[in-house]
Amino acid sequence: MSKIVLKGNIAFTPTKEKFQIHKNSYIIVEDGKVVDICSELDKSYKNYTIQDFSDKLIIPGFVDLHLHAPQYPNRGLGLDKELIPWLETYTFPEEGKYSDLDYSRKVFSRLINELWRVGTTRSGVFASIHKESTKLLLDMFIESGLGAYVGKVNMDRNTAPYLTENTRASIVDTEEIIKEYMNKSSLVKPIVTPRFIPTCSEELLESLAGLAIDYKIPVQSHLNENKSEIIWVKELFPNSENYASVYDDFNLFGQTSTIMAHCIYNTDEEIDLMAKNGVYAAHCPYSNYNLSSGIMPVRKFLNKGVPVGLGSDISGGNSLSIPNIIAGTIQASKMAWINSNKELAPLTFSEGFFLGTKGGGSFFGKVGSFEKGYEFDALVIDDSSLSDINELSIEERLQKFIYIGDDRYIVERYVKGRRIEKPFD
Amino acid sequence: MSKIVLKGNIAFTPTKEKFQIHKNSYIIVEDGKVVDICSELDKSYKNYTIQDFSDKLIIPGFVDLHLHAPQYPNRGLGLDKELIPWLETYTFPEEGKYSDLDYSRKVFSRLINELWRVGTTRSGVFASIHKESTKLLLDMFIESGLGAYVGKVNMDRNTAPYLTENTRASIVDTEEIIKEYMNKSSLVKPIVTPRFIPTCSEELLESLAGLAIDYKIPVQSHLNENKSEIIWVKELFPNSENYASVYDDFNLFGQTSTIMAHCIYNTDEEIDLMAKNGVYAAHCPYSNYNLSSGIMPVRKFLNKGVPVGLGSDISGGNSLSIPNIIAGTIQASKMAWINSNKELAPLTFSEGFFLGTKGGGSFFGKVGSFEKGYEFDALVIDDSSLSDINELSIEERLQKFIYIGDDRYIVERYVKGRRIEKPFD
Repeated sequence: MSKIVLKGNIAFTPTKEKFQIHKNSYIIVEDGKVVDICSELDKSYKNYTIQDFSDKLIIPGFVDLHLHAPQYPNRGLGLDKELIPWLETYTFPEEGKYSDLDYSRKVFSRLINELWRVGTTRSGVFASIHKESTKLLLDMFIESGLGAYVGKVNMDRNTAPYLTENTRASIVDTEEIIKEYMNKSSLVKPIVTPRFIPTCSEELLESLAGLAIDYKIPVQSHLNENKSEIIWVKELFPNSENYASVYDDFNLFGQTSTIMAHCIYNTDEEIDLMAKNGVYAAHCPYSNYNLSSGIMPVRKFLNKGVPVGLGSDISGGNSLSIPNIIAGTIQASKMAWINSNKELAPLTFSEGFFLGTKGGGSFFGKVGSFEKGYEFDALVIDDSSLSDINELSIEERLQKFIYIGDDRYIVERYVKGRRIEKPFD
Repeated sequence: MSKIVLKGNIAFTPTKEKFQIHKNSYIIVEDGKVVDICSELDKSYKNYTIQDFSDKLIIPGFVDLHLHAPQYPNRGLGLDKELIPWLETYTFPEEGKYSDLDYSRKVFSRLINELWRVGTTRSGVFASIHKESTKLLLDMFIESGLGAYVGKVNMDRNTAPYLTENTRASIVDTEEIIKEYMNKSSLVKPIVTPRFIPTCSEELLESLAGLAIDYKIPVQSHLNENKSEIIWVKELFPNSENYASVYDDFNLFGQTSTIMAHCIYNTDEEIDLMAKNGVYAAHCPYSNYNLSSGIMPVRKFLNKGVPVGLGSDISGGNSLSIPNIIAGTIQASKMAWINSNKELAPLTFSEGFFLGTKGGGSFFGKVGSFEKGYEFDALVIDDSSLSDINELSIEERLQKFIYIGDDRYIVERYVKGRRIEKPFD
């Protein structure tokens, strides 16, 4: 049994309302899980390996609930279009390249290195339609030591010809990946990934739901990102009550754990259905700005008890940094407050931090917090050069790191108790 | 006469509509000014010192039209309040410390180093009410080699007691600084800085306008940042047509060159008055998010011919990086597009870049572009690690640097033809 003790200023959010802070304390980790936090080290822990990080901050690793691995090379490019033309001009041509495994490896090694660099310890990842490239991505995540759900994307209509799958082949490939990877790693797992309603036939949606339920595999997709997308879905499924109910009618909406990215234009009924079915919303504020999609009213979802996490959504989003996205989330919530005539209160700092750690982390199990029994995903932050003018509280130091820090301040990363080094050369 | 030649991929925006790009070309600089750009080096330039930056990018230095030097220690802190309570809880107490010159020096050296680091070559800066500290800041900017307008803040009412000046002393101190610094440096100059209407008596406003006009000194202040601020101004000046006309009635609105920060809630009449008087708007998107102020409809100002630049507005804003603020400006313009029922077109990439260079730069003279006769403020960008997957055009490489780069990619900074090293240890 592996046993470690880290010493430092420990901060996390067991609930969104407030930080729990242990100044100058010890966190005890056994077999990858938190067993205790204490200000004095009990003698029963004396023979554990002690890592003394002195005045540094120890916080949970960040969780990115929504990103597209094959879009990594397009990050920061072409952000002057709306969703559908952006997909057609920039995104689909790039995604077409992943039949090439050498190219895939080149991109994925850079992506995973960068997730490591910015302190993202768990991710919900869309690969492309390509089976072998998706397997490579799963293998590379396993090799890295970071946690991830990785999904082969399914599309059998309404997309570029070179990205249109044969329906049967799409299902067979997905099942092959599920069987090969469902028990291969405790940290990296497959996830069923219909891209979104317009690119999937009814047969495909039905079969994917069958796979998810039969193998107990989670699901990820997109919901209500853009008004023209919503009209399109309505045209395709005129008899469905709304966009969310199309997924629900196909058993792809919480029948197994489910993430829906964006959720900007959800009706109250759709938010209620997410709450009822425990469907996660992945809020991706920078993508929603860049693609002129709009601002998700996060407060409404929290009020109704929908689980919410944050996503970079590269390359609709430009930033892979969850700290950066936490700041963007709080900022966007202030515009939602104005847009709602001050009905939807802006998110507080602890709420933003919660969404970027335990909020998304709970999709992975006991992840994103340091409560007893939680898997120890952690970052050590050396913010000494950020807080050297005035004396600050631990929470204020954390604010500074989130709002003006970057990866240079992250000095150690742990996933499930294991220290992770830069994954690829 | 100093003569230098730089070689690289040269990109700038003579107009907001479009980049001018000179791939693999030479830029000739004499006495700090651009004299030519050419793809082959004419033999008359052969004996100039040539700096070959090979495949790197050479772009204009960034311009920050609005920032508060004494708020630097508060960056990233307390961003859960609106303007007026934020001023009272966080900002005024910090600004009270600048009677202490040792403290001032400690803060200003870090601020100026960071401006250098992020590639800001010219700034419009608010100091505090303190005369000696303001002089120190002017001197430290001169020592750094960066360009700046620096203003002693004037406040003689409606602020914390320890920041309330005696009206006469405020005027006398301001005049002393003007006389001492107006001809001391070609790059660093004083600027008349009434904080905003509510904190200045009529006598103070009148006298400051007199100083600005007599000594031909520019003016900077705040306008229409927040709805409760606007109501307050209306209460103080019930007979004025609007907030802008209060400044105009006191001759502080374009009678000499003027910057007004924020301008979120300008009426059409106020925008017209800015256009007529040539008053600059400093758009500060991150501050406007953080303080729940709102989104400035930049497109409206551009349509009416108002000169617009960008500002970090630290510490209302969290980021000092103008590239970051360019991305934020384009993003915010997309939300303004939605808010305006798609009437106000989102800003393009070249428009965002223009605002962060020549848009604000023109306040300083021929600054922010590489047209002939422009002062050579420049950055050299090594983006090789950002663009190593697919082949990209120069403009695409620049997009990547703006959207996902940071100071690590800036390898050289020049101001008026002079290479600038890190200013303070």
